[in-house]
Amino acid sequence: MSLSSNDNDWRSPCPVARILDILGDKWSMLVIRDLMLGKTRFKEFISSPERIPTNILTDRLNRFLIHGIVEKVPISEGGKRFAYQLTKKGNALRPILKAMVNWGLKYEEGTRIGIKTQK
Amino acid sequence: MSLSSNDNDWRSPCPVARILDILGDKWSMLVIRDLMLGKTRFKEFISSPERIPTNILTDRLNRFLIHGIVEKVPISEGGKRFAYQLTKKGNALRPILKAMVNWGLKYEEGTRIGIKTQK
Repeated sequence: MSLSSNDNDWRSPCPVARILDILGDKWSMLVIRDLMLGKTRFKEFISSPERIPTNILTDRLNRFLIHGIVEKVPISEGGKRFAYQLTKKGNALRPILKAMVNWGLKYEEGTRIGIKTQK
Repeated sequence: MSLSSNDNDWRSPCPVARILDILGDKWSMLVIRDLMLGKTRFKEFISSPERIPTNILTDRLNRFLIHGIVEKVPISEGGKRFAYQLTKKGNALRPILKAMVNWGLKYEEGTRIGIKTQK
């Protein structure tokens, strides 16, 4: 999918500005985290402890699709239910997530990993 | 400075959620980028190509101060002009920024580093 028609919306050619145009918000990297932890379904993402609102989740998943960060795979016969999975481009976000985890654990008191998902 | 009174505002103990509570927006990491590139002054930050609005810059710098990411140093006699510099905690964001740069350069067409600041 070509994004060239939207190129004028980019703020600058800086790679940091560009990634923030796509993922710079309070929720995107939490969904990426969940995808990296093996979650694939809409209902799994909304069950995470941060309780992402469904409209925001829908928006972010669509944005990830447009930017080739996730792909959508039908998992039922009628094609009404989907699983989301990271593409190569999406998986390449792992070093960013890992660096965020390291920083948070070191500098923000009370953070921890391995938090149970709410049922 | 204790932030314990605000602990209830955190979304979860996940280090990713925590860092996004502080830095999860389209602008914060651009100011961190500028600080890492040696910019220290309010007028230098607003001269960057992305043209951060002054009210957003003021808000972000104050947030960075509260969270111990930057410190403010008076640079004139009356103490009316200030330079901002990264603390140890702020400098520790470098691996995150570096990973963002790497991802952007590899996966987002047209990105490049070494962009001239507008005068």
